[in-house]
Amino acid sequence: MEHEILSKIKSPSDLKKLDENKLPLLAEEVRDTIISTVSENGGHLASNLGVVELTIALHKVFNSPDDKIIWDVGHQVYTHKLLTGRYEAFSTLRCEKGISGFSRPDESEHDIVFSGHSSVSVSTALGIASANKINGKKDYAIAVLGDGALTGGLIYEALNNAGHMKGSRLIIILNDNGMSISKNVGHLAKRLAVMRSRSGYFRLKALTERAVSKIPLVGKPLANEIFKIKTDLKNMLYESNFFEDFGIRYMGPIDGHNISQLCDALEGAKLVNSPVLVHINTVKGKGYKPAEERPSEFHGVAPFDKKTGNLSSSSNNFSEKFGEFLYNQAPKDKRICAITAAMSLGTGLKKFSEEYPDRVFDVGIAEEHAVPFALGLSKNGMLPVFVVYSTFLQRCYDQLIHDCALQNSRMIIAVDRAGIVGDDGETHNGIYDTAFFNGIPNIMVYSPSCYCELNNALVNALYHSDGPCVIRYPRGAEPEMPENYECSGKPFDVFGDEDADVVLVTYGRIFANCYKAYNRLKADGGKVKIIKLNVIVPVPEGSLDCIGNAKKVFFFEEGVKSGGVGESFATNMLEKNIKADFSLTAFPDCFVKQGKLDSILRQYSLDSDGIYNVVTTELNK
Amino acid sequence: MEHEILSKIKSPSDLKKLDENKLPLLAEEVRDTIISTVSENGGHLASNLGVVELTIALHKVFNSPDDKIIWDVGHQVYTHKLLTGRYEAFSTLRCEKGISGFSRPDESEHDIVFSGHSSVSVSTALGIASANKINGKKDYAIAVLGDGALTGGLIYEALNNAGHMKGSRLIIILNDNGMSISKNVGHLAKRLAVMRSRSGYFRLKALTERAVSKIPLVGKPLANEIFKIKTDLKNMLYESNFFEDFGIRYMGPIDGHNISQLCDALEGAKLVNSPVLVHINTVKGKGYKPAEERPSEFHGVAPFDKKTGNLSSSSNNFSEKFGEFLYNQAPKDKRICAITAAMSLGTGLKKFSEEYPDRVFDVGIAEEHAVPFALGLSKNGMLPVFVVYSTFLQRCYDQLIHDCALQNSRMIIAVDRAGIVGDDGETHNGIYDTAFFNGIPNIMVYSPSCYCELNNALVNALYHSDGPCVIRYPRGAEPEMPENYECSGKPFDVFGDEDADVVLVTYGRIFANCYKAYNRLKADGGKVKIIKLNVIVPVPEGSLDCIGNAKKVFFFEEGVKSGGVGESFATNMLEKNIKADFSLTAFPDCFVKQGKLDSILRQYSLDSDGIYNVVTTELNK
Repeated sequence: MEHEILSKIKSPSDLKKLDENKLPLLAEEVRDTIISTVSENGGHLASNLGVVELTIALHKVFNSPDDKIIWDVGHQVYTHKLLTGRYEAFSTLRCEKGISGFSRPDESEHDIVFSGHSSVSVSTALGIASANKINGKKDYAIAVLGDGALTGGLIYEALNNAGHMKGSRLIIILNDNGMSISKNVGHLAKRLAVMRSRSGYFRLKALTERAVSKIPLVGKPLANEIFKIKTDLKNMLYESNFFEDFGIRYMGPIDGHNISQLCDALEGAKLVNSPVLVHINTVKGKGYKPAEERPSEFHGVAPFDKKTGNLSSSSNNFSEKFGEFLYNQAPKDKRICAITAAMSLGTGLKKFSEEYPDRVFDVGIAEEHAVPFALGLSKNGMLPVFVVYSTFLQRCYDQLIHDCALQNSRMIIAVDRAGIVGDDGETHNGIYDTAFFNGIPNIMVYSPSCYCELNNALVNALYHSDGPCVIRYPRGAEPEMPENYECSGKPFDVFGDEDADVVLVTYGRIFANCYKAYNRLKADGGKVKIIKLNVIVPVPEGSLDCIGNAKKVFFFEEGVKSGGVGESFATNMLEKNIKADFSLTAFPDCFVKQGKLDSILRQYSLDSDGIYNVVTTELNK
Repeated sequence: MEHEILSKIKSPSDLKKLDENKLPLLAEEVRDTIISTVSENGGHLASNLGVVELTIALHKVFNSPDDKIIWDVGHQVYTHKLLTGRYEAFSTLRCEKGISGFSRPDESEHDIVFSGHSSVSVSTALGIASANKINGKKDYAIAVLGDGALTGGLIYEALNNAGHMKGSRLIIILNDNGMSISKNVGHLAKRLAVMRSRSGYFRLKALTERAVSKIPLVGKPLANEIFKIKTDLKNMLYESNFFEDFGIRYMGPIDGHNISQLCDALEGAKLVNSPVLVHINTVKGKGYKPAEERPSEFHGVAPFDKKTGNLSSSSNNFSEKFGEFLYNQAPKDKRICAITAAMSLGTGLKKFSEEYPDRVFDVGIAEEHAVPFALGLSKNGMLPVFVVYSTFLQRCYDQLIHDCALQNSRMIIAVDRAGIVGDDGETHNGIYDTAFFNGIPNIMVYSPSCYCELNNALVNALYHSDGPCVIRYPRGAEPEMPENYECSGKPFDVFGDEDADVVLVTYGRIFANCYKAYNRLKADGGKVKIIKLNVIVPVPEGSLDCIGNAKKVFFFEEGVKSGGVGESFATNMLEKNIKADFSLTAFPDCFVKQGKLDSILRQYSLDSDGIYNVVTTELNK
């Protein structure tokens, strides 16, 4: 379809000039753009389709970027991007050097912060509102979050603080579609469902009118009066509101697909002059039937057929294989149970959870809780396996020390999406876990390169360990392994010439790239060896002895350089008085931007050509 | 006083045999023991005095260790220790190889987990209860937490999950004294105060009787009926209860110093067979007048005069000095604001918060929230300084990446208690921050050795930086610095012989120990040099060039070895082709147990003798 209206909107001020009756058509054009682009580039679909009207209303009512909108997680910012000057560039969504799928300040002054992780928006918005208050500024700070964010504890820390800071111009928009990524968990979801079903808007409207007729005042006192009357009445009719227990004023629920109702509600929220939550009902996937029908599957998608809504699915990836291996162990050992933080689909646990619902715990977006919860299970004889993306595991670093390593209790942390994730960019790359596990005592870390080693690691962690174990594996499929490769089940393997001059050391999926480079170096006539670490923390005893009399050691690591495994390996070399030259190729002190995996590995010399070049350049010095 | 009753209690079964009328006397003996021991050894006083009766009731009613009691944080476990066979050993509280001030499974089967950090108890207890449910066991899991723990978000993740898991035998004891460590913050504290003031026990009792007379059933159905009636009535009389919004049944409030009321309530809670919270009112510091009057000051104390209750206070420590330096900058720069996570006393912020209350934010035990909140302040032109203990900073590792480093926004993280803390042991040592900051991009870390360098670092971070900065400093006073020492303000300093054979590299307070060892090595006739790092992350450019032609480099670090600064230094050496021998002395892959600082440094060869010996042993090889 033609995007007659949308294509002319270069900034929110263009939107503000539009006739109200044009807005539904604008919404339609926005949806068409989003569906088309995501079907080609992949991305977050259902979550973005739910907030089209809400975003239009936000940019009508507020004055971005003086009023600052903070998008929780950021998987609902596409409409915002389209309305703030990024329509033309939108076709580059999630491509290398293109538009990010999340909020990015380096793209636009309307993106206030980088976002990607859940439940932090209220904290940031409260900081903005507090600074405004200190400086006597009248601008608003607006946090937009989904109901899924309410399963993360951080949000309560922020709500508890916000309720305490009267007079802050903080507006919290609860975009409630009854879903987080999958269906919501926890008891609070039920309470929200009750609140969602009330006819709040009309009640609010009636009360507003009543208040206006009774109290001929404007601004803050009026709003206060409205709330007093509303609260009085509500307390008679309903039980107390959860958010008001935190001291946050509550408005809603509002129909999230009715732009004029939304604008009325947001204008009302502006009058409160104190932290207020506006409860918006939306439909996840709104306007695209397949996404409305299967919102979880359409939360984040690879490119798909727009006409049919058919999503391709494959079980040829580490996540599905891990789920399968765990599922295979489950009937043999009733102690095994799985924990996921709202990621049962992404982590391959679907089949396990369908067959053994009592032994799979979806704790919500609550990584901090997951670890001490696993500890409790472990203390009573279970074998808990917490399956989590590397980037979100960062959220329970303290619990990994305090409730896992220190306790030395048996549990397995299965770290999915370890390494580069590609299209999602800086906020989602799993390149820090190697370094942070390196600094934590008592935990053994496995880094399999292929499915066979993944299964080996799981069996070792389950049955040949008496403490906590980590198994880290990347997004996507196993790499092309050497022909006739057999996994050994040992802490490390060595390939190549006994009397090698050059040693390549590596682990994880980029072993495959190293092996290709190794073959080329051999073909060039070099004496070369690979030390492949299967256990990376601690560096396996004996692996250094295999360096022998080699003159040069090259370490390749799909993780951060500082504090990582390569640096520990180097230190061990020095301490063992191994005087070979050493070179470490890993991610330097920076954040890795979005792009295809291959392209990123090439950029950082971790593809086979890069590895070959690093070695030959050094040898030819 | 004689401890006639207490001295005969070797386990909870001895307690169960005691006459009820002996219990108040037992409580008195327990209090006397606690006050005497803490006045001599230091420790947590006020929090422990508040739960004497509660702990007696818990061990009367429950059957530990089959029923498992999880103590949140653990600064209320002294009575528990005295009742579970540790009366004789209690005089060694917090001493090297003595009784820990926290829960420690290696001390007793009644200590289920190591504890030390806040707000995790419900998660662990829920895990235990879930395992019991899966295995058909009828034992209880009991979490005991203070109202302060409710300012930490993790607890809501657990509550939200618990409410979802009907049929779990989970009992949550809310020990509500209206205080956390300092006075509670956040709006929820006000709501709790309202709940606290109700006369819950008698209402509960009346209802129970009514229910029992009406419904001639036993066990679960009876308890359910009781709750139904209670809920009906309560909804008529009161507004809805906060915890019931999470699906947690609520009982209370109960007088926390009345053992028979407590036992009745706990017996009642056992009948519920579903997650239930028992709200207990206690007086922090109960039974020792100075502690009742000044509960915050008596939360955790150094040895003191038991008769007068006089606490010694000193401003000769890094915390007070940092507070003073920040306070001195405040009038000159209105952008400066401070954030604390319930630690304004411990971190020296008292004066700042009294004079500039609008610019000091106590966010509660909410480290995760503190960082994105600081980001918001920073985004609107403020200069936020988050002052936090190293061990608790671990709780916001993800936010340090996602809401600090990635955003590259100006904020200062002041890391107090960095390094060994001594008496509090494994759960409180700040030896991991060096490693985890090492693995995070974009953040510069200062490690001053003395007050002058602390102030320099603060000024540099405030006015000579355009990104996030960390300043880490230890517990206690500055060490004895070399005579006429002048701090340079540079990223690193070099002392000693230009053409040294031996180089010592170090940072932070143990520089003083290195310097003493250096003097001895010089006196022995050696050619020696010290490279003192003032910025430790990233390792300062040029510091490695100062190694010159030295043959041996010794790195000494008060932090974990794996992933730490020493390993980065070693790797840099190799990459720069500096072929000196290298030795790294730091904390190995273990948790450091309680003891005096000097003793611990000696144990790990980080005192001056140890450093001297490490060097000479290597030189004499």
